[in-house]
Amino acid sequence: MDISFIGSGNLAWHLAPALDNVGYTVKEVYSRDPKHARALVGRLYQADVKSTLDFSDSPSDIFIIAVSDDAIQDIVREIILPDDSILVHTSGSQSLNLLGFAATLNTGVFYPLQTFSKAKKVDFNDIPIFIESEVDEVNKVLMKMAKSISKKAKTISSENRKALHVAAVFASNFSNHMLTISKSIAEKYGVDFEVLKPLIAETLNKSINIGPENAQTGPAKRGDMEILDTHLEFLKDDPDVAEIYRIISQHIIDQSE
Amino acid sequence: MDISFIGSGNLAWHLAPALDNVGYTVKEVYSRDPKHARALVGRLYQADVKSTLDFSDSPSDIFIIAVSDDAIQDIVREIILPDDSILVHTSGSQSLNLLGFAATLNTGVFYPLQTFSKAKKVDFNDIPIFIESEVDEVNKVLMKMAKSISKKAKTISSENRKALHVAAVFASNFSNHMLTISKSIAEKYGVDFEVLKPLIAETLNKSINIGPENAQTGPAKRGDMEILDTHLEFLKDDPDVAEIYRIISQHIIDQSE
Repeated sequence: MDISFIGSGNLAWHLAPALDNVGYTVKEVYSRDPKHARALVGRLYQADVKSTLDFSDSPSDIFIIAVSDDAIQDIVREIILPDDSILVHTSGSQSLNLLGFAATLNTGVFYPLQTFSKAKKVDFNDIPIFIESEVDEVNKVLMKMAKSISKKAKTISSENRKALHVAAVFASNFSNHMLTISKSIAEKYGVDFEVLKPLIAETLNKSINIGPENAQTGPAKRGDMEILDTHLEFLKDDPDVAEIYRIISQHIIDQSE
Repeated sequence: MDISFIGSGNLAWHLAPALDNVGYTVKEVYSRDPKHARALVGRLYQADVKSTLDFSDSPSDIFIIAVSDDAIQDIVREIILPDDSILVHTSGSQSLNLLGFAATLNTGVFYPLQTFSKAKKVDFNDIPIFIESEVDEVNKVLMKMAKSISKKAKTISSENRKALHVAAVFASNFSNHMLTISKSIAEKYGVDFEVLKPLIAETLNKSINIGPENAQTGPAKRGDMEILDTHLEFLKDDPDVAEIYRIISQHIIDQSE
């Protein structure tokens, strides 16, 4: 089957070549910035840069919207598709209904659960891909496409995909922000963040292996109020960080009871 | 030099054999629970179980308190030491002054920055060890001991050690708690936490490699208020988790400006 990509960001950068390599043919790449589209085309066998969203003469069967969440709606309003084509978005947080405006009923979601950056090679084989569609035939096509690159393809409802996305925000975005705060506290006192890396690696390793609920340690888990007070006092020059410290500690205490 | 351990918990479990293996001799292990002391003695070459805190006849030169933070003070009040011995604690959060009650001026801190569990083998070589003492001779002895097992031995002040400990709480305890929340959200909707593990591994990998401040992604980082509102609405049955979501997102937004 032939595919057109709308968007040439971090996800498209890896997903388009991955599909190109397993028997799909990416024919077209559209991007608001043609330079970005050209760069992605350079990674593909037979693709051309597409400069408008009028795909009425497109040879493609599947149109993959891989743009930031807030740009999807504008794309859907503008895009012109050939008959019987399949339109999917790749967002974890946007509902399937968002594609309801498009001039096709063959809509779906194709959501690879991973964080992508252009510089870092990824192996799709291990990346869970979540499929959603209300049309059986679309579901089949998307599941086949997902299975062609990943051994972790699953169907999911919009509601559960939202839960998954909120869970991913905590697991990825917020855990990363804890490291950002950690680094800024350490560096404020001239302590190199490097020294914390073995601890971070071991913590996460343990968390993944025995489950985070079993890996919890620290003053809040022990209910050590004296240390908690000392730390809050220590953080008093940065009330926002102190409040984050307080509220997470309280939640750990509540869950330990 | 000869060493006695007060405490036989997770840290002592790994630290005592590590020192035993590089030319120090652990002579005695004291624990409130003699069964625990015996178990640790079983991992050592020449150690005996010590059943009281009266060490006046002890052959040891260094006494290492490796107990939970809130138990240190009681130990210090009770312990009887031979003349000229060195007394250290191993806590990240307790000040050196806590040892001021002891009948020796040769006090110090010997703080290995890692999370330990009995079941998991550790390589001290990569674990940063932080040394503090106001007595030059003690500093030298502790630094030599730290360097004998780790290539990351450093001196640190009480103030900076506190900063390091607060930083470690964010990096380790709080990032782990983000995973706990993530898991409970996922499982509430029947989504297996397994599917989030590749994302967690990649996020932390990226964070360690390019720095957490450069690895931040997600709706808060993008300032995507629509998604934030959807997620807060999604979490409304659990106000504590919703508040944690809100306050961390706000901090990410504030830092992105």
